[in-house]
Amino acid sequence: MSHWESYLATRQSRFLDELLDFLRIPSISSLPEHAEDVARAAEWVGERMKTAGLEAVRVIPTEGHPVVYGEWQHAPNRPTILMYGHFDVQPVDPLADWTYPPFAPTVADGRVYGRGASDMKGNLLLPIIAAETLLQANGSLPINLKFLWEGQEEIGSTQMPGVLTTYRDRLTCDLAISADSFQWDEHQPALVLGTRGACGLQIDVRGPETDLHSGMHGGAIQNPLHVLARIIASLHTSDGRVNVPGFYDDVLPMSDAERARIREVPFDEAAYRAQVGVDELFGEAGYSPLERVWLRPTLEVSGSWGGFQGEGSKAIVPGEAHARLSCRLVPDQDPDRVLELVSRHLRQNTPPGVRVTVTARRSRSRPYVVPAEHRANQVAREVLHEIAGQEPVWIRMGGSVPVLDDFQTYLGVVTLPFGFSLLDEKMHAPDEFFRLESFAIGQRAYCRLFVRPGKPRV
Amino acid sequence: MSHWESYLATRQSRFLDELLDFLRIPSISSLPEHAEDVARAAEWVGERMKTAGLEAVRVIPTEGHPVVYGEWQHAPNRPTILMYGHFDVQPVDPLADWTYPPFAPTVADGRVYGRGASDMKGNLLLPIIAAETLLQANGSLPINLKFLWEGQEEIGSTQMPGVLTTYRDRLTCDLAISADSFQWDEHQPALVLGTRGACGLQIDVRGPETDLHSGMHGGAIQNPLHVLARIIASLHTSDGRVNVPGFYDDVLPMSDAERARIREVPFDEAAYRAQVGVDELFGEAGYSPLERVWLRPTLEVSGSWGGFQGEGSKAIVPGEAHARLSCRLVPDQDPDRVLELVSRHLRQNTPPGVRVTVTARRSRSRPYVVPAEHRANQVAREVLHEIAGQEPVWIRMGGSVPVLDDFQTYLGVVTLPFGFSLLDEKMHAPDEFFRLESFAIGQRAYCRLFVRPGKPRV
Repeated sequence: MSHWESYLATRQSRFLDELLDFLRIPSISSLPEHAEDVARAAEWVGERMKTAGLEAVRVIPTEGHPVVYGEWQHAPNRPTILMYGHFDVQPVDPLADWTYPPFAPTVADGRVYGRGASDMKGNLLLPIIAAETLLQANGSLPINLKFLWEGQEEIGSTQMPGVLTTYRDRLTCDLAISADSFQWDEHQPALVLGTRGACGLQIDVRGPETDLHSGMHGGAIQNPLHVLARIIASLHTSDGRVNVPGFYDDVLPMSDAERARIREVPFDEAAYRAQVGVDELFGEAGYSPLERVWLRPTLEVSGSWGGFQGEGSKAIVPGEAHARLSCRLVPDQDPDRVLELVSRHLRQNTPPGVRVTVTARRSRSRPYVVPAEHRANQVAREVLHEIAGQEPVWIRMGGSVPVLDDFQTYLGVVTLPFGFSLLDEKMHAPDEFFRLESFAIGQRAYCRLFVRPGKPRV
Repeated sequence: MSHWESYLATRQSRFLDELLDFLRIPSISSLPEHAEDVARAAEWVGERMKTAGLEAVRVIPTEGHPVVYGEWQHAPNRPTILMYGHFDVQPVDPLADWTYPPFAPTVADGRVYGRGASDMKGNLLLPIIAAETLLQANGSLPINLKFLWEGQEEIGSTQMPGVLTTYRDRLTCDLAISADSFQWDEHQPALVLGTRGACGLQIDVRGPETDLHSGMHGGAIQNPLHVLARIIASLHTSDGRVNVPGFYDDVLPMSDAERARIREVPFDEAAYRAQVGVDELFGEAGYSPLERVWLRPTLEVSGSWGGFQGEGSKAIVPGEAHARLSCRLVPDQDPDRVLELVSRHLRQNTPPGVRVTVTARRSRSRPYVVPAEHRANQVAREVLHEIAGQEPVWIRMGGSVPVLDDFQTYLGVVTLPFGFSLLDEKMHAPDEFFRLESFAIGQRAYCRLFVRPGKPRV
């Protein structure tokens, strides 16, 4: 056993306590009443980096929630890696659906339950623990490290372009690594080759000035809920394609090689159906479930409301109807262009008798592709193979990590996603959890990644 | 000025105070937390009838909210009229849209603002005030009167068949009069020739067990809000016809005479558009607005909800989506048959990947037609002509009064709608109001109706 391996082995109980501590902070970035908790989480991360022996640690205010910086820069002529992740978490509603309290983390069945466990406080600690371990056990690192943790990934990372512009020189690096990532399952390691982009909008349909008596007026007035339904129904064909003209124009066709890589991923459809609780999957005709989630764009209604929703009944023609639409984008779709196409379609499908307004969500992100042949990917493959005993598969993330594209734009570097969450860990949902086994494996994987000789950039 | 006219003239201030008192009771029948208020309104009506000199006054419990009975039966060999109305009111949400508090009635600009002012606490008081006036001023009535007020008209009068069965002998009469009715406008008197029937149902669409992360799952799972939108969109053609197979099968075609009567009604489309606050009317092709609201059936979504509706954004594929549907029916449609047709259509238009349940609302009512040539209608015409100085037009009510059909079925009598609300008084909506002028005219009209010699039944 090497020095660093025994250092790790003898500190597991402290590291777990630290994770539980970190999970106790309700750092929900989307709720203003939790702004102080997000700031507290930033302080916690800064202190944890100092404990690890990292230097120049600073909590940096932004126009939104703070970011945290730290570094170790004593490997001249060796590559510099910028570590990225976030310490904010999703809201917890519906609270009643949690078995374990979201901010009183609970260890059970080899798992840590709590909001943020999988997304991504567990992952965030891995490279900090690895840096501490290598510095304490070996006295130095064979690479230079910079750390940039943010506090508003869950609300779109809108402050990051400003941060990357202001601190561009400080953040200069050869490669970024995002710890906000996944393995395929408990046995199958994986490397993420890309993420989908995202954008969204709200549509408001307004008819009569107030709700109207459906007996006295029903039949003479356009019903905003009927209009909204027609508009939403117009967004897709019955075989699951998005029906907005031009929506697929910039979508790159899947190559045979990409489809072959996806077929290599051991996807168990029955297990997936059971996990999400549906009898049947549904999606765009001509594509497999993984292809649909990874390499095909979507346009989803994430919420809709209008008229009387209380108990009992109230016979009205409602005055208004509303819906939130959310797109996931794939290369080479551009969020601004897609928002324009969708908005135009919504306006063109508005019948007479109502007024429709469309408001685009400010936060948006472009899809991101990691070059498979990048040297960093080769190094990561070797590390994962050593740790898991088998070759990783190439996967993608259906979700969006807006800063991946920002690192390319502002720092000119590729980002390697390297994280240890698994897909069933109820991210964004009640009873989110992280596996203790993943927490341990991830620490070793990061140590190996950091000590591996060679420049990550070709 | 006759005795009764001067009695009326000198009691207006007390009668208005009583109306305000009555309006202070939040007798919302659809909300269980207001059950005691509905009971309180029943007691209030009973006391008011006693004050009027009516006899055998009783608040009678039912399986739902109570009904109130009273009578004056001292005109042997003269006809007996059964007065009908309701003391329950609609809910008040959205509360923020009220200029005046719904249950702190406010007199302004010759109007009384408050929930229930127009529908129908103002109208309910008219025949009670008329009975008091005639009894006090003349010592007796030339007809026999029975009063039956109910407390759950706004939730479908589902207790009434039971009440009419149990008290059939007590309620024997020659004619029923419903005070829950309208005049056309401030100058134009009107008689109502019929009401639409009603039925409704709720549709629940269930997809994945919980809301899912739209990045990780979006594209592979059927979205319940998309399904609901397609189902709702399938209910109508783009030119406003209901698209449910068989829906129009039992609808009687409009006769030329009916269409001619409707053309005689002075309908000002621009004023109507301004009243409801729309730029354009919309409805079934081939019919005028009044024809659509009076003699054509509708299928309306009165409320719909699903997914994330809070502030901010939450990118999910929702687990559920819901809608309430509400039909208005015309002769000879049957509510049970229509519910069956709509339910079948909903099931047949459910795509794979979701589970749909359809729950019919218990309350339903058949359309009702008053025979135009009925002697009661002739008497009412003469009274309205005398009071308003011009001939009434024949109108219909787009709304539903379930008991009209029940009176025919259980008591074997025709019901004459005779009320003084106007159509712009925001029934079921914020800032409901009743005109003080209508309150005064209605009292005189009921006095004349009750003293007019002759048997109302031919």
